[in-house]
Amino acid sequence: MIVRLPSIHGNRCRCVIHGGLVYAVAVSPDKTPSFYEQARQTFRAIDATLAEAGSGKSKILTVTVFIADMARKEEMNRAWDEWVDMQNIPLRACLGTELTGQDLIEVLVTAAQ
Amino acid sequence: MIVRLPSIHGNRCRCVIHGGLVYAVAVSPDKTPSFYEQARQTFRAIDATLAEAGSGKSKILTVTVFIADMARKEEMNRAWDEWVDMQNIPLRACLGTELTGQDLIEVLVTAAQ
Amino acid sequence: MIVRLPSIHGNRCRCVIHGGLVYAVAVSPDKTPSFYEQARQTFRAIDATLAEAGSGKSKILTVTVFIADMARKEEMNRAWDEWVDMQNIPLRACLGTELTGQDLIEVLVTAAQ
Repeated sequence: MIVRLPSIHGNRCRCVIHGGLVYAVAVSPDKTPSFYEQARQTFRAIDATLAEAGSGKSKILTVTVFIADMARKEEMNRAWDEWVDMQNIPLRACLGTELTGQDLIEVLVTAAQ
Repeated sequence: MIVRLPSIHGNRCRCVIHGGLVYAVAVSPDKTPSFYEQARQTFRAIDATLAEAGSGKSKILTVTVFIADMARKEEMNRAWDEWVDMQNIPLRACLGTELTGQDLIEVLVTAAQ
Repeated sequence: MIVRLPSIHGNRCRCVIHGGLVYAVAVSPDKTPSFYEQARQTFRAIDATLAEAGSGKSKILTVTVFIADMARKEEMNRAWDEWVDMQNIPLRACLGTELTGQDLIEVLVTAAQ
């Protein structure tokens, strides 16, 4: 069985659940120019999606963070440190890529359900 | 058991099957300068690989789209909308990265078998 | 059960094991300006982590290679060809992205345990 949670874009999902794994993606709902604030809101969106999927922060396996400006990675790190479950730290990779429109950060997560 | 479908490059695979999951990657076989056409051919290559792996479009879980020019994302979106199974929409992330040679798009897919 | 192998950074892991799958990430411990050498050391770090996780090169499913300079991809390819298990070739995607500090390559791996 494959469970799909649609995004606000009708043509793709923000979350797919299958085989005990949860795959989630998020950007910041608020396109503020504050990198830290976009990161904070993106991680919050991940939390909400994981809760909806019957998973949660403690069950995250991997996090891939795509950021639009590597020079501002420390702002992402600050939001990360406030957000991450230090008893259950995930694998993380952080890459500098181009993102869509005013998005400064996009996060892909794999979690156990 | 791990099943591997080699790519035209002898030193890597275009598809690996394991544990009920199918991992596939594709670029456009034709290096046309048309972004839309490369996207279309890339999605078609994914279809062919998934069929060979005993999976298919309706079972795709996640799609990560890497594009060489974010300014032309709409051409990818057009190909996406023509391709995607609207009854079984996957998670999608789209990132702007550098690609190899004349590739304008590279797509990574995870699907249920 | 989720097993986590911390990285030298306290706030994230270099490896997570769950459901028969091993997720690993590595960069070169030595930030030498030699692209080839960083690639070699990164693949060696992956080997060490997979061994620690009860997996190994022959069980790798997918490799995503992020490199800081696509013009020097051939140096990565050289290290790849020396490293890869030609009897068990993984899926590979190679993307040009910005990386952190003096990192020239970062590698994400999924393997069977």
